[in-house]
Amino acid sequence: MTGHPFSAPPIVLTTDFGTSDAFVGVMKGVILGINPRAAIVDLTHEIAPQNLGQGAFVLGANHSYFPIGAIHVAVVDPGVGTDRRPIVLETPGAKFVAPDNGLLSQILKAHLPAHRSESASLGRTILPEDIRAYELTNPRYRLPDVSNTFHGRDIFSPAAAHLSLGVQCEEMGPRLWDLVYEPLPEPELQDHILHGEVIYIDRFGNLITNVEVGALSDEGLNRPTPIVQVEEREIKGISRTFHDPATADLAQPDGLPLVALFGSNGFLEIAVTDGNASASLGAGVGTGVRVIFNS
Amino acid sequence: MTGHPFSAPPIVLTTDFGTSDAFVGVMKGVILGINPRAAIVDLTHEIAPQNLGQGAFVLGANHSYFPIGAIHVAVVDPGVGTDRRPIVLETPGAKFVAPDNGLLSQILKAHLPAHRSESASLGRTILPEDIRAYELTNPRYRLPDVSNTFHGRDIFSPAAAHLSLGVQCEEMGPRLWDLVYEPLPEPELQDHILHGEVIYIDRFGNLITNVEVGALSDEGLNRPTPIVQVEEREIKGISRTFHDPATADLAQPDGLPLVALFGSNGFLEIAVTDGNASASLGAGVGTGVRVIFNS
Amino acid sequence: MTGHPFSAPPIVLTTDFGTSDAFVGVMKGVILGINPRAAIVDLTHEIAPQNLGQGAFVLGANHSYFPIGAIHVAVVDPGVGTDRRPIVLETPGAKFVAPDNGLLSQILKAHLPAHRSESASLGRTILPEDIRAYELTNPRYRLPDVSNTFHGRDIFSPAAAHLSLGVQCEEMGPRLWDLVYEPLPEPELQDHILHGEVIYIDRFGNLITNVEVGALSDEGLNRPTPIVQVEEREIKGISRTFHDPATADLAQPDGLPLVALFGSNGFLEIAVTDGNASASLGAGVGTGVRVIFNS
Repeated sequence: MTGHPFSAPPIVLTTDFGTSDAFVGVMKGVILGINPRAAIVDLTHEIAPQNLGQGAFVLGANHSYFPIGAIHVAVVDPGVGTDRRPIVLETPGAKFVAPDNGLLSQILKAHLPAHRSESASLGRTILPEDIRAYELTNPRYRLPDVSNTFHGRDIFSPAAAHLSLGVQCEEMGPRLWDLVYEPLPEPELQDHILHGEVIYIDRFGNLITNVEVGALSDEGLNRPTPIVQVEEREIKGISRTFHDPATADLAQPDGLPLVALFGSNGFLEIAVTDGNASASLGAGVGTGVRVIFNS
Repeated sequence: MTGHPFSAPPIVLTTDFGTSDAFVGVMKGVILGINPRAAIVDLTHEIAPQNLGQGAFVLGANHSYFPIGAIHVAVVDPGVGTDRRPIVLETPGAKFVAPDNGLLSQILKAHLPAHRSESASLGRTILPEDIRAYELTNPRYRLPDVSNTFHGRDIFSPAAAHLSLGVQCEEMGPRLWDLVYEPLPEPELQDHILHGEVIYIDRFGNLITNVEVGALSDEGLNRPTPIVQVEEREIKGISRTFHDPATADLAQPDGLPLVALFGSNGFLEIAVTDGNASASLGAGVGTGVRVIFNS
Repeated sequence: MTGHPFSAPPIVLTTDFGTSDAFVGVMKGVILGINPRAAIVDLTHEIAPQNLGQGAFVLGANHSYFPIGAIHVAVVDPGVGTDRRPIVLETPGAKFVAPDNGLLSQILKAHLPAHRSESASLGRTILPEDIRAYELTNPRYRLPDVSNTFHGRDIFSPAAAHLSLGVQCEEMGPRLWDLVYEPLPEPELQDHILHGEVIYIDRFGNLITNVEVGALSDEGLNRPTPIVQVEEREIKGISRTFHDPATADLAQPDGLPLVALFGSNGFLEIAVTDGNASASLGAGVGTGVRVIFNS
C-alpha cells in the first residue's frame, strides 16, 4: 500500500478459546508487550472445543481474505503440553503459527499436488516446495516460563508478535519436512451422483457442504438442472441468492422455502429463505447431501 | 485532536453475523487489505438474525458516541443479492454504509422534520437537505468478485475502507434521493396515558421501551408522580438509579424490587434491582408499557 | 520498546456487559473520541452479570500478562449511580479504572503485606505505600453529561482515554487512603488436608480452584503423592498436562480420565482429558476440593 508508512501485516487469531474466559485477551496482551503497534484481528474464537476439523475448515475457507503476509495464529490444541510440535508454516501468501496436529490441513491441501493429496493416507504429508515449516523451539521467541497448558499464550503469541516485527521464520527453530495432515472428507462421484456431506453450520443455520463449485462445473454444467437431496428433501436446481423466487419445481410440499446455492466461500449450501435450515431439517455436521445430475 | 498526526475516523461494525463464524473477521481482513491502519471497532454483531428493527434501534441509539466522521458499516441484510441497493448515507456527523432496507431508519428519523417523519407512510422517505446518499456501484470500491450472499465482505467493507482513506461518498456511485424508511413504533398519548412498548431487552434483562425522556417531560413533569404499568404490575414513580430505595409506593406485593427509570440512551426502562426484569416478568419485545399521568 | 516511536499503553477492558448489546462498542467509541490512536483490548466481557468475585478473580489472575503501564478498565458495577466511588488505582505495573466495590480486591491483595491481608476483615483495607488511588471526580475527564446507569461510558472510559494520553492519576481527583476489599476465600490447612473450593469454571469445563501452586509446595512437596478429592472422586497425584497417561492409580472406576493439574495461572485445576469436568462431575463454583497430603 504505497503512501502508508506503516503497513505491518495483521496478526489474525483463530481459536477454540471462546471469549467468556480471558485466554484471548491474555494472548493479545502478550503480543502487545512484544509489538505495541501490532494490528490484531479475531477470525473467530468459537471453534467448538478441541474440534480440529472445524478449525481446519474455517481457517482454510477464510484466510485468503486477509492481506498478503498476514500472520495467522491458530490454536485448537487438545494435545498441549504433550510432544506434538508447535510450528510456523510459511506459504507464499501468509504465515501460520499453530500446533502440528492437523489444524493446518486445509492450508496444506491447497498447496499439495492433487496426486500427493490423495496418497497422504497415513495422517502425515511431505511438504511441497513452495511452503516451509519450522518448529518453534527458539527460547528467544517464547515467554520465559512456558506452561504445559497454554501455549497460545507462552509460545504461539510471542512467535507471531516477533514475526510481525520482521523476525524470519527460519529463526524460530529447525526446519520440518513433514506435518500432520488430516484433510476434510471429499465428496465422491458415482454414476452421476455426487455424495457429499455437511461439514459446517453457520449462525443462520445454513448447511455448508463439502461440495465445491468446481465439482459441479466439471460434472454438471452441460446437463439439465441438478437435484440436491438432503434429509428426504429434494431441491430442484441451484439458486443464485437466498431469495430466489420459488418456482413450482423448487417448492417443498410443506411450503418450506428451501434453496441450494453456492455460498460466499464457494461451497454448496442448503438454506431456508429468511429461516434456519439446520433447525427446520434437523440436519447437522455429517448429514449426507447428494447432488444428482440427470443424464 | 491536535497533537495527533493520525486521526483517521474509526470504522464501526454493526451486524447480525455473530462471532461464531468467520464473517466478521473476514470483513476486517478485507478492510485491512485496503487500509492497513484502519481502526476497526465492533458496536455489536449480535443483532438477532435478519432483525432489521433491532439493528435500526441499536444503531440509532448508540452511533452518536463515536467520533465525528466515524464510518459505520451496518449489515443486517436478508435481501442480499436481490435488487435492494447497497448505499452510503452521509450525515453531518457520520457516514453509514449499509443495505437500503430500512436499517438506517432511526438515523434518517433524527434528521427528518417531524411532519415529514409522520407522513412517510409508504415505507420510503425523501432525504432532507443535510444528508446525502449514494448507491455503491463503483467497481473500483468493491472486491473484484462480488458474491450474491456476502456483500458485507464484497461491497460494504471495501467501501468503508476506501472512505477511511479519504475517498468521497460521491465517488461511490449515483446519488439517491429517497430511501427505505421503516421507523420503530412510537408511543401514543390518549387521555393522559402514554401507550408504549418494549423495543429491546439487554443482557441484564432490562426492558427498554420506546418512551423517550422528552415524552414524559412534555406531558408529565408538572403533574404528580406517574405510574408505569407493565404485565399487570404497577410501578409508582421514576427512579434515578437501579438501586433507588423502594418506598412503600414502589414496593411490589411479592417484594420484587421493580424500578422504572430512564436509561443511558434516554429511553424508559423497566428493571429489577440486581436482577433480570425480562425473566421475572416474562416480558419481551412488543410487551405493552403504559405511563399514566395523574391529573 | 526501542525502535518503536509509538508505544502508548493499551487500554484493557473487563466487564460484565457481554457483547450482545452496544455497551462495549460505545465505550470504545468514547475512548477513540478522546484518543483516536488508543490500542484497545478486550480481556473479557462475559463476567457473569453483577458477579464481583468472578470479575476480581479474572482481573487478578490475568492482568500481569499485559505490558507495563497498561490501563485496565474494569466495570462490574451493580451500584452504578449510588454513592460508591469511581476510582483509579495505580500500582507499579498498571493502572486500574473501576468502581470502588471490591472489584480490585485481588489486585490489592497482591500488594498487601500478608498480615494486613488477613486482618482486613471489615470489607475495607488501608492502601500500602506502593499503590495509590484517586477518586474520579474531575469533570474535565468525564463526559459532559453523566448518566446514573452507565459510568463505563461516562466516567471510566473517558478517564482511561485521558490517562492513555499522559494525564496523571493525581489529576483525576482527590487521593483515597482506603478501598473496599473483599478477597476471594483462601483454602484452609487442617491436619495435612488443604480445604479449598472451585472459584471459576472455564469454557472447557475445567474446575479452577483457589489452591495455588505455592500452597502445595509448602506443605506437600516432600511428602508422597497428594490425593485430590472432589465430588466423591479421588485423584491420585498431580498431572503435568491434560493428557498425562492415566496410571492404575489415576484411573477412575468408571474410566473417566480425570486429572488434577496446575493451570496456566498457577491454580489447581480439575479437568477431564478431552472432556468437560464440570459437566461430568456436576461441579460448580463453590464445590469443595480437598488436597490430602499423606504423612
